[in-house]
Amino acid sequence: MISQETIVALASPSGAGAIAVIRLSGKEALSIAEQVFQSVSGKSISKQKTHTIHLGHIIDDGKVFDQVLLSIFINPHSYTGEDVVEISCHGSTYIQQQIIQLLLRKGCRMAQAGEFTLRAFLNGKLDLSQAEAVADLISSDNEASHQIAMQQMRGGFSNEIAKLREELLNFASLIELELDFAEEDVEFADRTQFSDLLNRIEFVLKRLIDSFAVGNVIKNGIPVAIVGEPNVGKSTLLNALLNEERAIVSEIAGTTRDTIEDELVIGGIGFRFIDTAGIRETKDVVESIGIKKTFEKIEHAQVVVYLLDGSWMMEDGSHNIKKVQIEAEKIKNQFPLKPLIIIANKSDKLSSSQISNLKSEIPSILLLSAKEKIGIDDLKTQLLSFVNTGALRNNETIVTNTRHYDSLLKALEEIQKVKFGLQSNLSSDLMAIDIKQALYYFGEITGEVTNDELLGNIFANFCIGK
Amino acid sequence: MISQETIVALASPSGAGAIAVIRLSGKEALSIAEQVFQSVSGKSISKQKTHTIHLGHIIDDGKVFDQVLLSIFINPHSYTGEDVVEISCHGSTYIQQQIIQLLLRKGCRMAQAGEFTLRAFLNGKLDLSQAEAVADLISSDNEASHQIAMQQMRGGFSNEIAKLREELLNFASLIELELDFAEEDVEFADRTQFSDLLNRIEFVLKRLIDSFAVGNVIKNGIPVAIVGEPNVGKSTLLNALLNEERAIVSEIAGTTRDTIEDELVIGGIGFRFIDTAGIRETKDVVESIGIKKTFEKIEHAQVVVYLLDGSWMMEDGSHNIKKVQIEAEKIKNQFPLKPLIIIANKSDKLSSSQISNLKSEIPSILLLSAKEKIGIDDLKTQLLSFVNTGALRNNETIVTNTRHYDSLLKALEEIQKVKFGLQSNLSSDLMAIDIKQALYYFGEITGEVTNDELLGNIFANFCIGK
Repeated sequence: MISQETIVALASPSGAGAIAVIRLSGKEALSIAEQVFQSVSGKSISKQKTHTIHLGHIIDDGKVFDQVLLSIFINPHSYTGEDVVEISCHGSTYIQQQIIQLLLRKGCRMAQAGEFTLRAFLNGKLDLSQAEAVADLISSDNEASHQIAMQQMRGGFSNEIAKLREELLNFASLIELELDFAEEDVEFADRTQFSDLLNRIEFVLKRLIDSFAVGNVIKNGIPVAIVGEPNVGKSTLLNALLNEERAIVSEIAGTTRDTIEDELVIGGIGFRFIDTAGIRETKDVVESIGIKKTFEKIEHAQVVVYLLDGSWMMEDGSHNIKKVQIEAEKIKNQFPLKPLIIIANKSDKLSSSQISNLKSEIPSILLLSAKEKIGIDDLKTQLLSFVNTGALRNNETIVTNTRHYDSLLKALEEIQKVKFGLQSNLSSDLMAIDIKQALYYFGEITGEVTNDELLGNIFANFCIGK
Repeated sequence: MISQETIVALASPSGAGAIAVIRLSGKEALSIAEQVFQSVSGKSISKQKTHTIHLGHIIDDGKVFDQVLLSIFINPHSYTGEDVVEISCHGSTYIQQQIIQLLLRKGCRMAQAGEFTLRAFLNGKLDLSQAEAVADLISSDNEASHQIAMQQMRGGFSNEIAKLREELLNFASLIELELDFAEEDVEFADRTQFSDLLNRIEFVLKRLIDSFAVGNVIKNGIPVAIVGEPNVGKSTLLNALLNEERAIVSEIAGTTRDTIEDELVIGGIGFRFIDTAGIRETKDVVESIGIKKTFEKIEHAQVVVYLLDGSWMMEDGSHNIKKVQIEAEKIKNQFPLKPLIIIANKSDKLSSSQISNLKSEIPSILLLSAKEKIGIDDLKTQLLSFVNTGALRNNETIVTNTRHYDSLLKALEEIQKVKFGLQSNLSSDLMAIDIKQALYYFGEITGEVTNDELLGNIFANFCIGK
């Protein structure tokens, strides 16, 4: 199944830097490297120990390409489990290309996306969920997603699954044995122990499945809908949160024409801010379409931030405050479970008596000035408080991968079938089918059960060079 | 002079990739790395051999940041000549930043631009011109500039200078000795041998100084002015040469509003194409400013390409051909030494009799069709023929660095003074002053003579991490 070819790719990011790393893996890695590398010491690299570094030159046809460091990893002591050579060269794009082209001429072929990690999996260096974690790790851009990927890469998740799978496999073989002695009507598998195991498996699967909600949110960022009329300061608020001028801020009402999304990391957690139009009642058709869109956006958000112009709220006596209360009620009724933060922006324009007035009318209101950067930290604290990071803090296993989630759901379904079969004294042969199916889904997660299409899908999402 | 601090920087290009390399150098490199690294084997890295690689985890406060490979280089066997540790981590920007921040907390400081190479120079691992070649190597984007940088980095240039400097130093000490015995009027330094040496030095210096013209052109690209009326196909020609749609091509006359510059590599040599307006006589003030600008641009070019619309040339009998001949004459008179290529573009629109007509009127004319990509290779060949790549092909030393060029010019001046002094029987003490000055300029190139300002200027142009 593993291609016998020796593959090569740039492992460091593309572009120019001080150094670049070119990686070779495969049976011919050392012999191909030997053809183009001349060590300063004069030693042959094929006779060197694993995990050693050698200074020398990349030479082709008498022409010196670069002075490089060459790192040697001898199978199975390498990332892929094959012989691996890493060439650390000067970082110009020109040099990188020249060296890779030279290696291609000498018999390497370009690695496909994720092919190094695919080989690591096929050679048993990583299980499938660990391999997937490598891609997650590389794309992690905040503390939470990084931590989950690290945990998964270190086997936390698949270890748990593998252990349960083994116990289940044990029972399965006993049940299979019963089939052989079907006529004698014996029970090799202790039904009470088996029921206990099924309950444990069910509990773990449910916990893992539940963790997906948190995991998914952490991996993709928590969607926060910002609801507000034009010109209440949404873009300014986003900028204050972002601490840099990412969105275009303008004094002209309605600058934010369409819903825009912005991602930022607060306290190690990614948030995706979805800017939406206000929700006030209107008879204007175009605007009412906007309101419908806003409600749709809120539906997909985990947290709703209702942003208002504090100075507008204090105009017209308490009339406007009442308006806000009614609108907030509307959102609450529509989305009773969604946390709602009501913010009075432009607090810098309010007198202290106006501020205490506002607070007594809407006690939960958050006063801030996006422009003057007052109250931003309070908002950050409130946002973080909605994230259930308990599991994360307690180092619990969190599922973030949709593929794993699907397999877990299917496994749970099968386990519940087995459980039901056990309770209703189903015959061993029928129960064995459900157990087999459950084992299959477990195996899908860890990679004990794979097929080319599945592997193709997983590794196609990797970057070249990994 | 060398800072005692341990420095850290990202050595691989910034951005995300499969892996990233973080480099530490300094007295504390190993002990700082030891604080954050836990090897899988459990071995202490401070007891490991130089040039070995170790698998392990970056851990802070019990929290695992990443699984990494750690490469150890023990002084003096490293790039900088100090203890160096390279951490090869997963390539997410988040991980890179976290690890660098951790190392900063543990006592490293961020490396300044070129500080690793500066330390390599100060520790005698490289001479100054070799250190400068490192930056050239990293920024080289074509074969010729890469080859020159490689040659310089391998010491080709400074070895020659250092050898002559030593011989001159020898004579200098003999002459100094004569000063001690001034009253006895002895000559320790053989005047004939000395004169021979001076001639040799003069010859080498002149050759190196001359090579700067080629070197400079290779390093910065050869400027080629494309002269032509609007709509003769300049942008299309550039695109055909570039083989990709870089400039905006349009049917509307005068699309190229200002002079644009485009660089491309032909046969390993960089060319900079300068697009200019036509030069025909005009009474229009704005246009005549354009013509003045065109002549200015031609002045800075090494080659002039005069691009015409072949179909226009064949209109109006031979009248237009005459016009072209007169204009070409004008350019020739203005710039008698600049190679001129006259191109009739849009040859696809000409009949074969029109083509042979054109060729008989202007034998040197190059017929091509930028649109149909006919004749592009002929143009490339002609362009390359103007570059004196003889020196390059013969692996001769080529000076590309303005700083070296200046020092060589000054050294030559001093050597010629010494030579004149010798011929006119100048007293030893006066001659000694000129010799010292020449030695000073030699030393400036190789770095035997330096000062902080000079070093600051040189290394500020490096990238961080090198």
